[in-house]
Amino acid sequence: MSGFVRRIPDGDNRERLICADCGYIAYDNPKVVVGSVVTSDGAILMCRRAIEPRLGFWTLPAGYLEHGETLEEGAAREAWEEAQADIVLDGILGVFSISRIGQMQVIFRGRFAADGAPRFAAGPESLEVALFPWQQIPREEIAFPSVHWALDAWHKAGPGPLGAPAGNPGSDPRGTLRPAAHGAA
Amino acid sequence: MSGFVRRIPDGDNRERLICADCGYIAYDNPKVVVGSVVTSDGAILMCRRAIEPRLGFWTLPAGYLEHGETLEEGAAREAWEEAQADIVLDGILGVFSISRIGQMQVIFRGRFAADGAPRFAAGPESLEVALFPWQQIPREEIAFPSVHWALDAWHKAGPGPLGAPAGNPGSDPRGTLRPAAHGAA
Repeated sequence: MSGFVRRIPDGDNRERLICADCGYIAYDNPKVVVGSVVTSDGAILMCRRAIEPRLGFWTLPAGYLEHGETLEEGAAREAWEEAQADIVLDGILGVFSISRIGQMQVIFRGRFAADGAPRFAAGPESLEVALFPWQQIPREEIAFPSVHWALDAWHKAGPGPLGAPAGNPGSDPRGTLRPAAHGAA
Repeated sequence: MSGFVRRIPDGDNRERLICADCGYIAYDNPKVVVGSVVTSDGAILMCRRAIEPRLGFWTLPAGYLEHGETLEEGAAREAWEEAQADIVLDGILGVFSISRIGQMQVIFRGRFAADGAPRFAAGPESLEVALFPWQQIPREEIAFPSVHWALDAWHKAGPGPLGAPAGNPGSDPRGTLRPAAHGAA
């Protein structure tokens, strides 16, 4: 993008990346991550990442919302892509800001759509997928701080109807800490 | 952007706009709108738009989240920019999907930060700013469907602690209807 320059567009109040030739403004918009805490008999569906960043670490099924999707559709698609799980959502557990990287997250609570034994498998972006009872979650091998936040929001919510969603924890109100700064909860 | 072509990048599963020269992938990410329903003595702060789209129509103080902001910071900034109002937020009223235009919204409940008579004024993107008692909201001159959704979420929430946020209404679960399709509530 060598033809891009930084200046404040007309009517704006901050610098943007603008093509010096055609005037195209490349807004650096924050990204939306949608995901879910999906459980079966109290055990939580988690995926071990097959891709960078944090390859080999455990995460929840989550990823970038796509243009044309609703938040719920995006979360269900990610559960399918990463864990081959067909899920149903029942509400929002958490709404988080990761301002360090220009990201926000909407994490839903979900369950497997079909009755009976839960069906799941590793999608192309996962090395393995597993159901972890709360006490057996691999807290030392979690990919991102916000995975802890979502897990804690699920635990705090309990089994009943969902109330106000969790936000960032007091220890990281703006979402600025790096994954390496977080160990076990 | 004549040098861009549509193809599926390696490791992806849908077409993206890719620069034929350098391989830069121009992801068409959904955008995040943050806003607030700010009240004083039960009257709601609204702004009449000085810009397109929907110039001259009434909206809530809201706009695009910027990179590096938290959701709360973005909502407070928009209240300042559009209504010159210094506000405090107390929770999330609604989380909406506007899939037609690749947008999602987080709308907070807020109040004026200072005690006493509320201070506000039209910012550069507003023709005028006013406090409307519930019954006097100009429902026939509302800029966007989601403004109705947020207003209704505020009214339904009542004055107490906030519970689960509202989502899209049953009449537009995916956020696909155009503003012109909505008249008075």
